[in-house]
Amino acid sequence: MPAQSNRGAVVLFSGGVDSSTTLAIAIAKGFTPYALTIRYGQRHMVELDAARKIARAMDVVEHKIIALDLRAFGGSALTADIAVPKHRNEAAIGGGIPVTYVPARNTIFLALALAWAEVIDADDLFIGVNALDYSGYPDCRPEFITAFERLANLATKAGVEGRRRFAVHTPLIRMSKKEILRTGTDLGVDYGLTISCYDPSDDGKACGSCDACTLRLQGFAQLGIPDPAPYRAAVETGL
Amino acid sequence: MPAQSNRGAVVLFSGGVDSSTTLAIAIAKGFTPYALTIRYGQRHMVELDAARKIARAMDVVEHKIIALDLRAFGGSALTADIAVPKHRNEAAIGGGIPVTYVPARNTIFLALALAWAEVIDADDLFIGVNALDYSGYPDCRPEFITAFERLANLATKAGVEGRRRFAVHTPLIRMSKKEILRTGTDLGVDYGLTISCYDPSDDGKACGSCDACTLRLQGFAQLGIPDPAPYRAAVETGL
Repeated sequence: MPAQSNRGAVVLFSGGVDSSTTLAIAIAKGFTPYALTIRYGQRHMVELDAARKIARAMDVVEHKIIALDLRAFGGSALTADIAVPKHRNEAAIGGGIPVTYVPARNTIFLALALAWAEVIDADDLFIGVNALDYSGYPDCRPEFITAFERLANLATKAGVEGRRRFAVHTPLIRMSKKEILRTGTDLGVDYGLTISCYDPSDDGKACGSCDACTLRLQGFAQLGIPDPAPYRAAVETGL
Repeated sequence: MPAQSNRGAVVLFSGGVDSSTTLAIAIAKGFTPYALTIRYGQRHMVELDAARKIARAMDVVEHKIIALDLRAFGGSALTADIAVPKHRNEAAIGGGIPVTYVPARNTIFLALALAWAEVIDADDLFIGVNALDYSGYPDCRPEFITAFERLANLATKAGVEGRRRFAVHTPLIRMSKKEILRTGTDLGVDYGLTISCYDPSDDGKACGSCDACTLRLQGFAQLGIPDPAPYRAAVETGL
């Protein structure tokens, strides 16, 4: 598609496959990227290092890392002491809301992105939500995104003054993991730098068996290329 | 009004006049109160101490204080190095969006309250927004609150599963400062513990001249009782 004018966009960016691909798409569309990483919970220190490397590699204008201790609320395997499930089959991944769901996470993340967008006078937010692989997460659905756009235009000075309309871009929302990986590969994303695992080791190696690793490995296998990320043990890629 | 059943409610609670009154109203309505204080920016350490004292005095079930560094985004006199305006007249307070507006603040605060509510299985959020005194703040208007309720029911596991409907209560939204102070006084709120000032001294004394102090002092004067809060200098109360 043709590049648009050089406008600022806040991209929610964890350093994983989905948000790195989303960042690459925002850049390809001609947006000037401001990457926002929310540091929450205890399990994602390794993700932060990955996020810094990828943001640098992709020449973002600014990369902000905001600390927010969602562990204070508990209620999720990603922020509290609930075990991350391993070796669930594909049907289980698609069925019901997983324990890795973080209460109100995307609402909080988009609200923070909106605050930054308002300050830097950007109209556009990008978030790498996916309604197929994560159908169990209520805040990954298109109707949630539409409701947030509506809220954003009521919540802000810029929206109220009619100076502009906020848009929440979800370029991955209908993509399979295979399509996401193909898109990012075409745009030059270095997936060797990305971390997807819910339970990585301290030296940044993925477990190969949590839901996120399973989906990622399936995607690479379907695409027919090896996953360049480091794993703790040899993983079956189906290649 | 008759007390309702003993249900949990998350009350956004800064330790100021409005949120302390809101907390008292939630309790009077029969809700079991969970107070949530968001620690943001640099100017409100004194407010935190006040919030702790009031929460204790009002017997909340739990008082959580969450740190969130909104200064990272800037864009407001309350979080960045923009001077807090002094001695504006009443018309000026009602006209336009003030520099003390914090971008997307109530969106962020309600999102955090929603996260906690989902974890503790509470359906109700309370926020002490006021559409009269703060008509310049876009995220204090009823249409913003309605849009957030809609979002909350799309954003959460509980909303999606139809187990319940979230409600955002804004008992102060149409009250004048005088009505707020009368309501709180009737409910036994100790306003001597509350801090309203945008620019308090380190020992907790209010400036007496910022927008928040001006509105508060006007309210007490209209109610015909002295403001029990400590001020740095003698203030004109009109009494």
